[in-house]
Amino acid sequence: MSAAVYYNKLQELHRMIDLRLRSIVKEREPKDLSDGCRHVLSAGGKRVRSTLVVLACEAVGGSMRSALDAGTAVELLHNFTLVHDDIMDNAASRRGKPTVHTKWDLNNGVLVGDVLLGLAYRSLLRTRTKQLHRSVELLTNSFLEVCKGQALDLEFERRSRVTVKDYFRMIEMKTGRMISMSAELGAIVGNGSEQQIRSLRSFGHYLGRAFQLQDDLLDVVADEKHLGKTIGGDIVAGKKTFLFIKAVERAAGNDKKILEGIVKNRRAAKKTSVAAVTALYRKYGVLEATEDQIRRNTVRATAALTVLPDNSSTRMLHWFSGILLQRIS
Amino acid sequence: MSAAVYYNKLQELHRMIDLRLRSIVKEREPKDLSDGCRHVLSAGGKRVRSTLVVLACEAVGGSMRSALDAGTAVELLHNFTLVHDDIMDNAASRRGKPTVHTKWDLNNGVLVGDVLLGLAYRSLLRTRTKQLHRSVELLTNSFLEVCKGQALDLEFERRSRVTVKDYFRMIEMKTGRMISMSAELGAIVGNGSEQQIRSLRSFGHYLGRAFQLQDDLLDVVADEKHLGKTIGGDIVAGKKTFLFIKAVERAAGNDKKILEGIVKNRRAAKKTSVAAVTALYRKYGVLEATEDQIRRNTVRATAALTVLPDNSSTRMLHWFSGILLQRIS
Repeated sequence: MSAAVYYNKLQELHRMIDLRLRSIVKEREPKDLSDGCRHVLSAGGKRVRSTLVVLACEAVGGSMRSALDAGTAVELLHNFTLVHDDIMDNAASRRGKPTVHTKWDLNNGVLVGDVLLGLAYRSLLRTRTKQLHRSVELLTNSFLEVCKGQALDLEFERRSRVTVKDYFRMIEMKTGRMISMSAELGAIVGNGSEQQIRSLRSFGHYLGRAFQLQDDLLDVVADEKHLGKTIGGDIVAGKKTFLFIKAVERAAGNDKKILEGIVKNRRAAKKTSVAAVTALYRKYGVLEATEDQIRRNTVRATAALTVLPDNSSTRMLHWFSGILLQRIS
Repeated sequence: MSAAVYYNKLQELHRMIDLRLRSIVKEREPKDLSDGCRHVLSAGGKRVRSTLVVLACEAVGGSMRSALDAGTAVELLHNFTLVHDDIMDNAASRRGKPTVHTKWDLNNGVLVGDVLLGLAYRSLLRTRTKQLHRSVELLTNSFLEVCKGQALDLEFERRSRVTVKDYFRMIEMKTGRMISMSAELGAIVGNGSEQQIRSLRSFGHYLGRAFQLQDDLLDVVADEKHLGKTIGGDIVAGKKTFLFIKAVERAAGNDKKILEGIVKNRRAAKKTSVAAVTALYRKYGVLEATEDQIRRNTVRATAALTVLPDNSSTRMLHWFSGILLQRIS
């Protein structure tokens, strides 16, 4: 199929998921709680995770109808993590809108997050599937891992030494798990075979890793208008991204001291310019190393698709991975 | 059966639930998150809700084994609400121990609450029942209602006028729902008939209401050692309890002004002594009105048990309601 057909289907999926996200918050009362939920769910987003659920379900022969409620559940779970993470990260805005705890208060931020999580389960329960136990278990295990990943991320902020291995472990839990879960959940509700479920989980695993690496990279190389947030935000925040950890590993002498200083001393971090750190990233080939990692993980992801039936949804999963990662080129 | 037999069974249940609560947090890492969960779950508590799940399950002919995991789930859900509520209420301690957000920080408080909720679902999924969909749905709906109740409670704090009807609606969602859900869930996992499920839900509904009214009353009449917290805490906090709302309804002239002043002006509230408000409660027969409400709701609760099989667990439910409400005498 042509890219135009895929784009049309993507838009159609987006529209259907948004419709479900809007209709799941019916109540008008209590006002702050309902308004807060609607505020989050109407802020947009690429709906990457729900798209993966639907395509994975169809790829193994399931219907879109079974997958839409499960996809909506994953999207709600994702939004729950955003609302609570924004509290923990002290983030004032997201997707160009004030965060819930900023627009209302901390209490409403905590509660809106909790409710979105409850709505995720409610949506999943609407899915027509023989695999209810397995689906609810997967959502639960994934959500618990995301929490652990977030806790590790907070721990890393306080730790001076974080290895690439630590980083991958954390980011796999915090971000990758939601992507791999989306593909796996689609395969489960679509009644896929064990082999198909394993393949789609693996596809999601590598895609999720590539996706996050790309996010780290975009913080440095994207243009601000495209990215929708400030360039170098991770550097200023002293975040231990893949790029940063790799640079510390490779740098020597004074360069290493500069990088390590950012972690040890937040005041030093503020004095070090984004341009200086980016220059070090270039000097030590960190951008290329990241691009290489993205490429390797993408290859592994799409390789996992080869055992699936060769239908239009499997092909669209191929195409969709490309689209997701196109931003780096 | 004699009270001694019931007390023994109660202790045995308590022990088994605590064992499950301890074993569900296996991981040692991430440290703050695991320690935080263990901190909450080892703080004790009466395990009222899990006891109701088990007794209700047995009353309709189910086995204790099926009910223990469901009971543990409800206990975990209850603890999730406590951790997040303590953040929202700015509570420094609970059950004589510092709250999670006090002992660690806000971030760990949010995350520990989230994880306890995830563990509740994990525990429920371990239940051997043919009614998985219905069980997960009940847990989800109840949890969403508890959140709405909490949001209403926060809203009432900012509102000067709250009627007895408003109060009952809020407290039914925030507190009552967890009690009625416990009894209903027991009946569901025990494979009870529709009539039995309805009866146990109704039993829990009235018991939960009586339980909360008694909590409001104990804030005024209990002795501190027995209660485990400061007497008059609700009055100092300017909380709109059943007693307070009833007193405002009944009082006139200067007395009404004093009570309304507490709500309108927090500084005035601090000047008004607990003794003065308690005196007004006595003057307007509010304590008797509350006791009367507790009695009515308890009668309704136990009346709902009459359609159940007359076995030892049904009888123990009768006895257990009495024990719960004995504190007022």
